[in-house]
Parts: sequence; C-alpha cells; structure tokens
Amino acid sequence: MKRIAVLTSGGDSPGMNAAIRAVVRQGIAEGMEVYGIKYGYKGLVEGDIELLDTASVRDQVARGGTFLYSARYPEFVQLEYQLKGIEQLKARGIEGVVVIGGDGSYHGAMRLTEHGFPAIGLPGTIDNDIVGTEYTIGFDTAVTTAVDALDKIRDTSSSHNRTFIVEVMGRDAGDIALWAGIAAGADDICIPEREFKVENIVKRMNEAHKQGKNHYLIVLAEGVMHGEELAEALKRQGDLSDLRVSVLGHIQRGGSPTVRDRVLASRMGAHAVKLLKEGKGGLAVGIRHEKLVENPILGSVEEGALMSINPDGSIKVNFPHEAPIELYRLNKALNNYSK
Amino acid sequence: MKRIAVLTSGGDSPGMNAAIRAVVRQGIAEGMEVYGIKYGYKGLVEGDIELLDTASVRDQVARGGTFLYSARYPEFVQLEYQLKGIEQLKARGIEGVVVIGGDGSYHGAMRLTEHGFPAIGLPGTIDNDIVGTEYTIGFDTAVTTAVDALDKIRDTSSSHNRTFIVEVMGRDAGDIALWAGIAAGADDICIPEREFKVENIVKRMNEAHKQGKNHYLIVLAEGVMHGEELAEALKRQGDLSDLRVSVLGHIQRGGSPTVRDRVLASRMGAHAVKLLKEGKGGLAVGIRHEKLVENPILGSVEEGALMSINPDGSIKVNFPHEAPIELYRLNKALNNYSK
Amino acid sequence: MKRIAVLTSGGDSPGMNAAIRAVVRQGIAEGMEVYGIKYGYKGLVEGDIELLDTASVRDQVARGGTFLYSARYPEFVQLEYQLKGIEQLKARGIEGVVVIGGDGSYHGAMRLTEHGFPAIGLPGTIDNDIVGTEYTIGFDTAVTTAVDALDKIRDTSSSHNRTFIVEVMGRDAGDIALWAGIAAGADDICIPEREFKVENIVKRMNEAHKQGKNHYLIVLAEGVMHGEELAEALKRQGDLSDLRVSVLGHIQRGGSPTVRDRVLASRMGAHAVKLLKEGKGGLAVGIRHEKLVENPILGSVEEGALMSINPDGSIKVNFPHEAPIELYRLNKALNNYSK
Amino acid sequence: MKRIAVLTSGGDSPGMNAAIRAVVRQGIAEGMEVYGIKYGYKGLVEGDIELLDTASVRDQVARGGTFLYSARYPEFVQLEYQLKGIEQLKARGIEGVVVIGGDGSYHGAMRLTEHGFPAIGLPGTIDNDIVGTEYTIGFDTAVTTAVDALDKIRDTSSSHNRTFIVEVMGRDAGDIALWAGIAAGADDICIPEREFKVENIVKRMNEAHKQGKNHYLIVLAEGVMHGEELAEALKRQGDLSDLRVSVLGHIQRGGSPTVRDRVLASRMGAHAVKLLKEGKGGLAVGIRHEKLVENPILGSVEEGALMSINPDGSIKVNFPHEAPIELYRLNKALNNYSK
Repeated sequence: MKRIAVLTSGGDSPGMNAAIRAVVRQGIAEGMEVYGIKYGYKGLVEGDIELLDTASVRDQVARGGTFLYSARYPEFVQLEYQLKGIEQLKARGIEGVVVIGGDGSYHGAMRLTEHGFPAIGLPGTIDNDIVGTEYTIGFDTAVTTAVDALDKIRDTSSSHNRTFIVEVMGRDAGDIALWAGIAAGADDICIPEREFKVENIVKRMNEAHKQGKNHYLIVLAEGVMHGEELAEALKRQGDLSDLRVSVLGHIQRGGSPTVRDRVLASRMGAHAVKLLKEGKGGLAVGIRHEKLVENPILGSVEEGALMSINPDGSIKVNFPHEAPIELYRLNKALNNYSK
Repeated sequence: MKRIAVLTSGGDSPGMNAAIRAVVRQGIAEGMEVYGIKYGYKGLVEGDIELLDTASVRDQVARGGTFLYSARYPEFVQLEYQLKGIEQLKARGIEGVVVIGGDGSYHGAMRLTEHGFPAIGLPGTIDNDIVGTEYTIGFDTAVTTAVDALDKIRDTSSSHNRTFIVEVMGRDAGDIALWAGIAAGADDICIPEREFKVENIVKRMNEAHKQGKNHYLIVLAEGVMHGEELAEALKRQGDLSDLRVSVLGHIQRGGSPTVRDRVLASRMGAHAVKLLKEGKGGLAVGIRHEKLVENPILGSVEEGALMSINPDGSIKVNFPHEAPIELYRLNKALNNYSK
Repeated sequence: MKRIAVLTSGGDSPGMNAAIRAVVRQGIAEGMEVYGIKYGYKGLVEGDIELLDTASVRDQVARGGTFLYSARYPEFVQLEYQLKGIEQLKARGIEGVVVIGGDGSYHGAMRLTEHGFPAIGLPGTIDNDIVGTEYTIGFDTAVTTAVDALDKIRDTSSSHNRTFIVEVMGRDAGDIALWAGIAAGADDICIPEREFKVENIVKRMNEAHKQGKNHYLIVLAEGVMHGEELAEALKRQGDLSDLRVSVLGHIQRGGSPTVRDRVLASRMGAHAVKLLKEGKGGLAVGIRHEKLVENPILGSVEEGALMSINPDGSIKVNFPHEAPIELYRLNKALNNYSK
Repeated sequence: MKRIAVLTSGGDSPGMNAAIRAVVRQGIAEGMEVYGIKYGYKGLVEGDIELLDTASVRDQVARGGTFLYSARYPEFVQLEYQLKGIEQLKARGIEGVVVIGGDGSYHGAMRLTEHGFPAIGLPGTIDNDIVGTEYTIGFDTAVTTAVDALDKIRDTSSSHNRTFIVEVMGRDAGDIALWAGIAAGADDICIPEREFKVENIVKRMNEAHKQGKNHYLIVLAEGVMHGEELAEALKRQGDLSDLRVSVLGHIQRGGSPTVRDRVLASRMGAHAVKLLKEGKGGLAVGIRHEKLVENPILGSVEEGALMSINPDGSIKVNFPHEAPIELYRLNKALNNYSK
C-alpha cells in the first residue's frame, strides 16, 4: 500500500490531531504518501483532499480540535455517496483510509472496506462509549476539563455552603460522570446506568449536613436528566439547601489533550497504519487491558466482530460498552454520611 | 489598635483568602491580634469569631474561595443587628474590622465605623464593578477562567465551523466580557454598556463567512440577555449557521487566584491594616493608576467619598464604575471582516 | 479489625492525599477507626499518631503532597525500631497499617506483618518503577507536569531555532521520559534502558535540519547522564546548533494530582482497607491490565511474591519493572527524518 | 502610509504573537497592507518578508512564542546592514515598521526611523526591564509560570520539611522574583536591587522553625547569584535544613500568554499602527498608570526621550526601570517570624 488517507468524523475530541499526526508520520516512515481528507465523509465525497507531509502535522500533538475539520454527514449511508467517495480515492491512487471518530464513522469505514478500500476505525469521542475499546481518544481530556471545573465549583460551593448540581456530558454512558465524580470528590453521582431515588439523595444530604458538611456536590450525566430538572425534583423532595446548577457544556470537547490522550492517540494512529500496510481493513482499533487490539467492525460474534446485522437488517452491538460501575460503588463508600 | 478582625461578605471571589492572609500577617507584624469572623456579617452578629495566627493562613495565598466562608445577610442594614455585632466585637476587645466584599459589604463597614469601630472595605468580587477601584480582587482570575473556557470552545468551534455564543458573568458591567473577548479573539462582544443591533452581528457573520472564516465566537455578558435569547434573535435575523450556546456559570467564581489577584489582594490586605493602625475607618481601598488609594465610603463628592446620601435618603454613587469601552472599539478593529 | 492506621513514606508524590482520604473514608464506611501516622516510619516509632475523621480528609482528593508528611527513615530496618513502632500501635489498639510509598516502604510493611500487624503497601512514587504494578500513584501527574513544561519550551525553541535538552526525573526507569517524550513530540528520547550513540543523535539532528526543521527537542531521563553532559557530548560530536539545557527538577513532584492519579489512588486506598478487613497483610496493591491486584511483598516466585530473599540474604526482585519500550520505537517512527 | 511591516527581535516572550496579530488586524482595518519579517533584523536584511492577511494570524492571540521567529542579530548596529534592510523595505514599498522586542531592538527601530522609515518599538520581553513602560509583553505570563512551579514545589517542600531555593529569571531586574515571591508566599526573596546578608536568611529560617514552620521557600533572581551558590552560602552560615535548589529556566519564556499579556499586546499592537498612520516614528510604546503612552526612543530628557547619547558616544538611559521595591517590604511583613 503506497497511498493512504485519514479523516475525522462526528463530534471532535481532543487528541484527534495527535492521531492524525501519528498516521501521517508512521505512514511516511513506512514509505507511504498520506492524504488528509477535510470535513470527514463530506470532504471525501466532494474531493476536499490534500497531501500531508511531516511538517504539516508539526506541533499538532498538543492541539485540541481537528485541523482536518469534522462534519456529520448522514448521506454517506447511501451507496451513491459511497461510490462518489471511492471515485475520489481512486482518482488519487489512495488505497486505504484511517477514520477517526465515533460509532457512526465506523459504519462508513465498513462500507469503504466492502468496496475494496481497506479502512481502519479509531475511537475518537469524549464520551468513552465506543464499542471495542476501554478508552476513547479524548475521554481523559474531557474528564480532566470537567474536574478542573468541579474543583473551581467546590471552592465557591464550600465558601457559601451551597449544593451544586453539575451536569457533565454523557448521553448514554456515565463514564465522564463516574471518573469526574470520584476525582472531584463528589457527594453523589447520577448516571444513566443506575436508577436512583431523588429522595435518597435528599436523605444523604441531610445526613451530611448533620455531620457538619454544609456544601454538597452532585455530578449528573446529561443522559439522566437536565440539571434544572434534578434541582426541581430535589426541592420537591424537601431539600432546603441553597441550590445551584451548572452545565459544563462544550468546554468538555476542547482543549489541549492530556498526556494520556496524546499517547493513546499516537499509539492508535501508528497501529492503524501498520494494519493497513498488512492489507487489513474493516477493523476498529481499541485498547483493552492496556494493550492495543483490533476487531472486525461488522461480522459474527465468533469472529469477534463489534457489530452484527440482525435478520431484520438492524444492527446489533455484540460487546456493548460498559461504564465502570465499580466507581459508582466506590464513591458511595467514600462519601458515606450515615456513620 | 491592638485587636482587629477580618470578614468576607457577599459573593466569594478568588483572592479573598490571599487578602485575609495579608490582613492576618500584616496585623501580627504590627503587633496586633487578628480575629477571623466566619460567614460575614452573620457570623459577626452571632459571634462566630476566632483568633487567627500565622499558621492558620499558611498556603491560603493560593486557595480559591474563602476559608472564613461568606454569606449574604441583608439583616445587617437594621440597627438592631449592627448593635448585636458591635457587642460581639466589644466582648473580645476588637477595635477595628477589615471587610472584604462588594458594594453591599461597604455599607456595613460604614455603619460599624459610625458606631465607633473603624472598618476598612476591600473590593472583593469577580465582576470588577465596585466603585473606587480600577480592579477588584478576583476579576483577573474570573477572566482567566473565562478565557480558558473560550480557548477550549474555539477548538471545537473551528473543528465544526460553528457559531458559539458564550455567556460570561457581568450583570451590570461588561468588564469580564470585554477582557475575555479581546483575550480570546472573540468576533463579537455584547455588553450592557453598549447597545447593539442583532442584525449587525448577522451581517458581520456573513462577511466573515465570505472571507473563509466559518466559525464565529460571540462573548455575551449575562446582563445583556441570556445566551439562548441571543441565539433565537440571531436565527430570527437570518443567521443560518450551526449555532450553539454555552453558559460558563459558577466556574468563574472559583479556582486558585492568578498572580495578579494574589498580589493585589496581598497589597490591599496589608494596606487596610496600616489604615486601621492609623485609626482610620469608613474607607474603601482601591487601586488606581497602579497605586493603592483609599476613599471615604460615604460622604460628599468634595471629600472624594464614593457614595453620598441623596436628600430623599437614597444612595448616590459618586464615581460610578466604567467598563473599559476602548476594548470594545479595539475588538471591532481587530475583527473587521468588511475589508 | 477495628482500628487501622495509614502513613506515607519516602519521596512524596501527587495523589498520596487522595489515597489517604480513601483509606480513611473506606475505613469509616467499614466501621473502623482510622489513624494517621505523621512523617512515615519515623512518626510510627515516635508515636506521632492521631485519629482522623471524615472531615479531616475533606478536599484532600485534589491536593498535592501529603498532609501526613513523609520522611526517609532508614533506621526502620533495625528490629529495635520496628518493635518501638509496634509498641505505639499496640498502645492505641491499632491492628493494621496501610503504607503508601516506594519499594523501601514495602520492606517496613513486610516487617510489621511479620510481627503480627498486617500491613498493605500502596505504590506511591512519581517514577513508576515500583514492582507489582503497571502504574504508580503520582506518575501520571509527574508526566503531565513534564509535558506542560515541554510544551512551553517548544514555544521558545521553535521561535529561536534552538536545540533543547530537557532533563526529566527517572533515575532507574525511563517511564517519565518515554511518556513525556511521546506526548510532547520530542525528537529524541534518551532512557537508561536503551543504549544510544551521541553521534546518531547529531546525525538525526542534521537530517531534521535538512528537512527545514530547525528546532530540536531531546528528552533525557536523569538516570542516563546530566543534561549538561549530553550537551557537551553533542558538541564534541559536531553539533553546531544553538543548544540549551533545562532541568525540570522538583516541580515534577508537586501539583494537584491528575484525574488518573486521583482515581487510581482512591481505588487503591479503598482496596487496601478491604484487604485489611479480610485480615490480609504483607501484600502490595498494584494495577495490572486495568484491574487492581495484590501480591505478597516477600516470598517465593511461585507464590507470586514481588521479592525473594537470596541464599546470601540479599533481596531479589522477582518481577522487575519494565518501562514501555514500545514507546521508544514509536517515537523513532513518528520522528523519522531520514525520509 | 499604505504598507507596513512587523518583526520580533531578541528573546521571545509570550504575547508576541498577540501583538503581531493586532498589528496585522489593525493595519488591515486602517486600509494598509501588512508584511511579516521573519527572524527579526536578520530577516529584514536578507529579505525574508511576506504579506500577512487576516487569516494568517488566526488563533495567534493564544499562542506562545513568535510565529515570525526571532533572532539576535548584532550586525544590525552597522550602517551597511541597516542600508541593506532599507533596500528590502523599499523594494516592497513598505513605509513603516513595528518592532517587538527588548532594548536592543529599539536601537534598530531608531536607526530605521533616522533613515526615513518610521519605526515603532513595542516592549516584548519577560524580564519587565525595558525603559518606558511599567509592564512588558510576556512579563505576566512568565511570573504566572514561575508561580505555578512554586506552588508545586511548595507541595513537596512542605511534605518533607525542606528548604527550597528556586531560581527565577531576571538578570538585572528583580520584577519576576518579587511578583512571584509575593504570589507564592515565599519566605524570602533575593533580588539584584537589594543587598542582603546570608546570615540574616539563616536567622529568619531558624525563627520560622521555632514557630513550627519546617519548610522554607526562597525565591532568587538569577542576577543575584546561582541557586547552588546561595545554597552553599546558607550551609556555610550554619543552615542545617534539608536544602534543595530548583532552577526554573526556559519554561518561563514559553506558554500561552495570560489574559493580561494578550490584552496588553493587543492594545499595544493596535496603538503602534495608529502612530505609524500619523507618520510618527522613533517612538516606543509603553503602559504607565494603566494608560498607553509613547516616548521618543532617542533624544533629550526634555523631550521625554528614553535614551540619550552621552558626549562620549555611549548611551544613557534617562528613565531607568525600577522594580517594585514596595513588594520587597510587603513580603518581609507577610513573612515575619520574629513575633
């Protein structure tokens, strides 16, 4: 394989640039030419593609966002658009593609592979909820940003004896909330994976108050409910504290990636190139038990494929992501006000 | 004067601890005993007061929040509560007080002085809108936090070609928005001090897009309107961009103070003690033209008093705070998309 | 077990406070009383021991250093001192101990266990070179500090077309240098585990210059040689660049712990208490393949013991720490200037 | 004036990019074309000059270093080289120049002006020691970096009861040491502007120890002596503490500029363009008492010129920089261990 390309797709995450840099540098080290496709699958279809050299990724290891830009492009599920994209690859002699993004991006990678252009998926998202990996590129940075914010909020919370509900990202997965909650010493963590009773939170708040702890910090994953909704529910259940809500929002997506994310992205980017060099495609790279692994994106459970097609044509996720529930229990023990 | 006390009142701000530390250390260096009053005027009235020594403020120069806690306590406008507070001071032989907080806190300081207990006010608030000073303790930190957030948001904004409205603090004053806007390279800054037309923002956005700039960053002071309101207004005026709103919220109140705030707080805290030592009270400390100054809190314009009493008993601010409007003009020039 | 104690020993590392907090909180949640021993084994022998409650560890999850203080205390290898320490434990009814520190601290933990006081070791050091774990408490923070510094040095290095040698910590292990080097995009990494020829670095520098890259960043583990020594060696081999040396030094030991370190410390601290509760001792906790594990500190290889006693009485490390050499190779590929 | 240029010279400092951006953007807003000269005066002489547009300075407000690169170029004191530089300007129709750098850079600006090319100097250096301004671009960031490091060192210092000497930049001026010392709560600050006796430091250390303060932090400006020299002197005078030295070095030159530096650089850059537009040259921009000012670089004291030529041809600085000695006295009061 002499020419490969790289694109970023879906929501951006810190470390995408480090991953692109690794693809470019490893590719060049392997004697390849590496192209950058701008704006994800949209740029692929429209031919927004340019040759990258070593210098073009200089200093990118430390930069947030993605200098190749990203875009959501649902059109790419249609064959017509896929074929257009492939024309663009063919016209430039590109033989393989690295796709950095979320689950959605993996589907595109699968299609390209089926059309004869091996594609490798790398998990780039802050939510940590991608199948086939324990950690995604950007997760550690997002949690770090959330904890920086929580540390600041704790200052003002304890100065005023306030209760704070801090809403963090995580639509389907509680990973950010769990990690951030433990790291910030949150009194309660609310995640989509665990049902909870609002009255129990109020009860615990009252126990904490009795022990002389007058501020209280609740980390809430956005997938559970809105911060304001939880605030109203707490009030309805009898909470009388000075209660505030803070929604961290998009700051969690940006910023210079942490060391963890830079190293993970660098390793995964280089690994993807090696897989392409071996002529492999249709694989997603992950990290499991501290080792890089790769799995077929689509196929049977026996093959270790991350997703299968159900008889009715719908997609089945074979090894669904699981948030680290042990952190939920740990937090309960570390913030036990009943004793 | 052999015994003084210090309290923090109103909303907390980063650097309050550094100011307390300076009061304690300078007081001890002057041969005084220094007491800490907890929870502001509430603690004064309730006698929540304890002796502080050198070690009790160790490492506090770097800590956010206020370890003396703060509280809003409107009751203190009533004579009855003031007299209760004075009883507490008398009972401990305390002869003077340093009050760190906002405008409201200054009123209490004035009352204490009128009752024979000299009190000095220090400007502690993140909004920078206190009369009698060009900079308040906490302002530089709050702007720094806002700019950290804006830098992160710019990463994701430019990766996705999005428009972002970022709402920062500042109910009456545009200082945070102006400083943060310049420092973050915002395309537009909306402040309470300047009327603006939403259609002009849309026009400028379109001009920027024509020049190939596809992301756009608007910093909005909360005193103007809510971020969501501005978003709707932009849409109504024809904006078609991928538009997001982020409300920074309470993170702006917390965090380890910046160098500027630590030095400002240290200087002001020490200065307040010197004024008390000279038997002065009813003064507010400020920084103007890089020099520490003090002004009577209440009195006539001729005396340089910050506030006067109108014939009808209401309060008149003699030298109202002015936001640095030249930064508004500077930002227009630095983000001029019509050429 | 109703009463346990915790101490920190050896060089301090960020996250020790988070670990202490977890021991205290988990202990209390299990119905125990938890004592803090100050100044490590020295405080144990001297009886510098106090009861800790939930509030005493409040906010400690985010604080650098160790609020229990640490000290090196070689005297503790002597039986006499061990017995004195045990008297102190007995006098307070303390039945088990958690020791947070380096390899040296583990020996003390072993001795206590042999004397009938179960002790559990937690790996607290920035160097990541402790047997029995893939990551130590403090390592991620130290690397993060190093990378922050490297990012800054790269700014000035590239502004001036300079070569920088940055000496990082790591006497025996290249872990900090490897992680920091990858994360900062270093051009070369020099570690104790890999021999290298100075002439090869000069050759690579010249190749980089030919490709228009005029600044060059070398990360050097202190265990290899001093930065100034390497600088002289480069000059002798013909390097003509504008060369500077920076020794990061003790900043790598301090600072608020990263999210990783806070979570790792919290998990390990809680786990140690559970092991004590089961009556276990003489074990060291580690993380391997993302799971908490524990191993006998001393014993046979078959038992999985981390160390054994040789026939001549010296200590043999059974599973010596290995730095992630794959990062060394990765960095070579990502900074390949021969193409 | 229709065409201007900008260059950075001497040691780089954080905020130079923000200043360049402001020159470019303000120039374009004024209807000018703005050229960037690379590598300072060297690039001027060699014609390493290119047109900059609005997009070329995008995001530069937040970047450390200087994207135009800097270089020391003593040759420019010779007429021959000045004339070569002027040829390069003439060939491109450039009529005025903004020079960002230290005192040395101002001399070049003066020469260009004398040759009929108005040049404006902006103070860009971390040391804060440039004549004609109270603050230089980069100073606040350098102090902030120093204080971040000092905060970390305090963690490890207090964990181990150690004395730390931390050497910060400042060859001739104690500004960084003074600001950093106050902000970090240093026990002692040693600056070139104040003689001190080593025995007095030892005395104070002993007094501090008596009060139960077992760690001690000394901030030392490099212009006084080397950290290791001070350490030896302390030992000779009888200090028995566990003493360490840390040299912060080049990290102080890099990093994303602080809010203060970004705003100062933006204001100064825009102001320089306005001065050029009015046809003015040979001026240096400064900030004094919070207002932008400009002074002739060379001339008589009566004209307010920053420097004059002595009868013997040497240069006389008319208004030498003075470090804020009041911070020295403040620190003595805030760290008074004799009571």
